[in-house]
Amino acid sequence: MSPHLLAAPLLAGQRRALARAITLVESTRPQDEASAQELLTELAPQGGRSIRIGLTGVPGVGKSTFIEALGLWLAERGHRVAVLAVDPSSVRTGGSIMGDKTRMPGLSVHPQAFIRPSPSGGTLGGVARRTREAMTLCEAAGYDVILVETVGVGQSETQVAGMTDLFVLLTLPNAGDELQGIKRGIMELCDLAVVNKADTDPKAANRAQSQLTAALSLLTSHAAEWHPRALQVSALTGKGIEGFWEAVQQFRGEVDLSARRRSQTAAWFDELLREAVWKAFAAGRAEELAAAREQVQAGQQTPVQMVRQLIP
Amino acid sequence: MSPHLLAAPLLAGQRRALARAITLVESTRPQDEASAQELLTELAPQGGRSIRIGLTGVPGVGKSTFIEALGLWLAERGHRVAVLAVDPSSVRTGGSIMGDKTRMPGLSVHPQAFIRPSPSGGTLGGVARRTREAMTLCEAAGYDVILVETVGVGQSETQVAGMTDLFVLLTLPNAGDELQGIKRGIMELCDLAVVNKADTDPKAANRAQSQLTAALSLLTSHAAEWHPRALQVSALTGKGIEGFWEAVQQFRGEVDLSARRRSQTAAWFDELLREAVWKAFAAGRAEELAAAREQVQAGQQTPVQMVRQLIP
Repeated sequence: MSPHLLAAPLLAGQRRALARAITLVESTRPQDEASAQELLTELAPQGGRSIRIGLTGVPGVGKSTFIEALGLWLAERGHRVAVLAVDPSSVRTGGSIMGDKTRMPGLSVHPQAFIRPSPSGGTLGGVARRTREAMTLCEAAGYDVILVETVGVGQSETQVAGMTDLFVLLTLPNAGDELQGIKRGIMELCDLAVVNKADTDPKAANRAQSQLTAALSLLTSHAAEWHPRALQVSALTGKGIEGFWEAVQQFRGEVDLSARRRSQTAAWFDELLREAVWKAFAAGRAEELAAAREQVQAGQQTPVQMVRQLIP
Repeated sequence: MSPHLLAAPLLAGQRRALARAITLVESTRPQDEASAQELLTELAPQGGRSIRIGLTGVPGVGKSTFIEALGLWLAERGHRVAVLAVDPSSVRTGGSIMGDKTRMPGLSVHPQAFIRPSPSGGTLGGVARRTREAMTLCEAAGYDVILVETVGVGQSETQVAGMTDLFVLLTLPNAGDELQGIKRGIMELCDLAVVNKADTDPKAANRAQSQLTAALSLLTSHAAEWHPRALQVSALTGKGIEGFWEAVQQFRGEVDLSARRRSQTAAWFDELLREAVWKAFAAGRAEELAAAREQVQAGQQTPVQMVRQLIP
């Protein structure tokens, strides 16, 4: 199907057109790539009208329950909510590997919600590219809240923080200092920290909230436009969801999101370009490079000499 | 001076020849680079006879005192000890910016020790390359223990862990869980964790040691050839230095260091090559690339389209 024919129903908010467009951007066939990119350029002026929220947290922290609760709360108030997942290790098996209908029973069948599992790696740019492109399509289809969930391992947090407006860390009330420590690298990325399942242990939740508040204030400079804060939520009872959304609105009011997106786009373009430059160089040279690597390992030439020989 | 004329006195262990050789590898003049690389190739067969130990820890943890104590202890037992520093942010100002004579008063004047401050960035490969090359030269000059110190910020830990045989994290007894947490990303790199200044608070030191032991065991797979462990040292009194060195010897006996170095060399070669490929591509295109970046930011083309246009 021509990309132009997809654009109109997609802009009208038709789920089917959106799903087909995402399938198109996920395709690894070169002719599909050209069509997909045309479509994305055509829809670009419609981008930027949503808030993109990245979510991370260790397995068991209740990401699905949180997304279900927040998504339904937003949908009831007229928002249209898209949920995307980033899992660099995922291999698509013809459907959601995470069982979205089980994970988010209400949201997955809600007419104002759209859920898409993690795309597979594919070509240039990998999972991060497919997710970015899917976000643009969801925005064009009128979804004004985009939730991007990471599985919380490896590089996925950095990737998701680099493609969203606001990055949220979910923690448990009784996780203990050890576990909080694991997420310290992630703490530097986050704009909001949420103690989830706060109802299960209110005392521990209070303690966790103060610890997170202290840690976040250490990481924030006084001059920053936004001071990350810690909140409590019980996704199960819905308590705290409204406060969370108020914090999101404040963030939106205080942070220059268009500047943030511009610099994210530039960084993303640079990353893609470096990857493409390397691929173009390495294409068809696998054997030559393997032989070079062995010579260097054997000490016959220094790494620098070999590099100068390959790139005079 | 011809590199061949430097090789003989350097192999004979003359400090002056070593210092000149390091200055040669740090030079950014193209003709010096060729000479330096020739020298390094000539000396390569003499490499691999030392143990390379990387050291990291937050400022105030006592890295200098630890290196001074360990270095003097080793020198007394006939070892020859080289100390190098990696500080990606350092700008050379004609001498050590960290004041090695003040930091390590005994070691800096010891005939069996050689201390060299952090090199400046220079060209291809930056600080990491200069440090790697300096290590090779120190090994050829007969230094059998090479201590590489990182300032403990940014990417320097990963760099140093990637160029040493054994990576050591220094911590404080009373650092608290919060501070230990900061180093969690670093924990995954470390082979030994040392609670330094253990004499200042023995109770806290015991607690810190058990916490580190627990954390390290969580991070190590059962099948690993080496299980990272936590030790206590008091660099001031010298207590624990012998135990530290015994652990290093055990590590040496259990880990296949030549395999580790081979894979480090391959990874380093790949990194240098990618950097060189990118530099060759970007050379002379600064304006073109800036214009492309702006077009992408303005949404006139998608990042992917622009990349395909630049690299068809």
